[in-house]
Amino acid sequence: MTTTFYAPPSSIRGGHVVLPEAEARHAAASLRKTTGDEIVVVDGEGGWHRVRLNHVGREQVVGSIVETKRDVGEPEREVAIGMALLKQRSRFETFVEKAVELGVACLVPLHTERTETDSFRRERVHNVMIAAMKQCGRSRLPALASPQSLSGVWGERRWLICHEQADPERTVTQALHDLPAEAPIGLLVGPEGGFTEQEVNDGRDAGGRVVTLGPRRLRAETAGIVAASAALLMPPPDPAPS
Amino acid sequence: MTTTFYAPPSSIRGGHVVLPEAEARHAAASLRKTTGDEIVVVDGEGGWHRVRLNHVGREQVVGSIVETKRDVGEPEREVAIGMALLKQRSRFETFVEKAVELGVACLVPLHTERTETDSFRRERVHNVMIAAMKQCGRSRLPALASPQSLSGVWGERRWLICHEQADPERTVTQALHDLPAEAPIGLLVGPEGGFTEQEVNDGRDAGGRVVTLGPRRLRAETAGIVAASAALLMPPPDPAPS
Repeated sequence: MTTTFYAPPSSIRGGHVVLPEAEARHAAASLRKTTGDEIVVVDGEGGWHRVRLNHVGREQVVGSIVETKRDVGEPEREVAIGMALLKQRSRFETFVEKAVELGVACLVPLHTERTETDSFRRERVHNVMIAAMKQCGRSRLPALASPQSLSGVWGERRWLICHEQADPERTVTQALHDLPAEAPIGLLVGPEGGFTEQEVNDGRDAGGRVVTLGPRRLRAETAGIVAASAALLMPPPDPAPS
Repeated sequence: MTTTFYAPPSSIRGGHVVLPEAEARHAAASLRKTTGDEIVVVDGEGGWHRVRLNHVGREQVVGSIVETKRDVGEPEREVAIGMALLKQRSRFETFVEKAVELGVACLVPLHTERTETDSFRRERVHNVMIAAMKQCGRSRLPALASPQSLSGVWGERRWLICHEQADPERTVTQALHDLPAEAPIGLLVGPEGGFTEQEVNDGRDAGGRVVTLGPRRLRAETAGIVAASAALLMPPPDPAPS
């Protein structure tokens, strides 16, 4: 399996790729790549390049592009997920890693009424996203919005609001099944303790649909992973089963 | 929301519950429960009890059972999952936590050809399972098998073998859809690097079915979470869609 590296589009010019410092160190020191080796470089904007290395130094690694493809590893469906920031940062980062692997296109960290933290380390989250993108074979880095309140997201698209309910309206699978196959999807997942009734009602007023993720109380980051997985990996089976 | 505690069946006798030491400390010191408070106690074997506290000491907490139910929070479908041990123990434990939340009935840690570790801390995994059971509202602790090789599992049930394939036979959703609604399900997920072709062929010979979890390369623990989620939370939508 060819190792995948990341270089932003600004490092890719005229058929040549200059790896960013951290990636160069990884290639040269950890993986002991040498001149003539082939690697894959993704640019986080849909560019996928097979690259032959011309120069491998401790601080600089340069190669020539041998082959280019677009949107390798990207899903057909555009899925955005708004996820409340979590008190335990590692749990939020676990969610981010999995969301990227699953193919989410846009991540929106949320401040909600029950959110118990303001802390958001953009640089760290960005690095988790790059690592996950390389690992799973994608070529696009999801858009990462600034943390915002729910009132900022309502107008943007029709959201499915994941909410624990005594008397569930519909499951996320049912709601996804009701949408046109290629419609962009938005999923909203609350913090520990969930959304408040007021937030859910506001969402309903804004055209959102309330959905359940099943009968057990999922941790917030588990709910985010399950929702993303339902939207991206679980297309309803073909109409004529048997 | 009433706080949930765990006490094994041996601590529940004649209408009284004696909380195990760690749970007693948690109730008394962290949550400051006092005599007369009500808590929920699950026994990990399907017993769910509403309990009124009679005695709250630093080292002992005792209560009387007010109400008992069976199998609260347990899914109808019996799902077992065999998951390869992972080099990073925290990633295996993330999987365990999510599998319990999702409703898995049986966890089988696997040694496979590409498994890179022998380390399995049963006590730690057991504690992760208890915490997850209490958190998600289940009353049964999943069975936790001893780590074993694939040859030990084949005869037990018909497994769906999650495997990255160039030319996928079927998705896990399709395969689940083909099974009778109440059939027990077995899912197998490999380590970093996946199962070998030999392992997959052995599984096929033993009656297993090979399934894909989608086009991106999921981390091992993500694959386990996604597979469990597909089996437990994503029933196919009702037959007459429109």
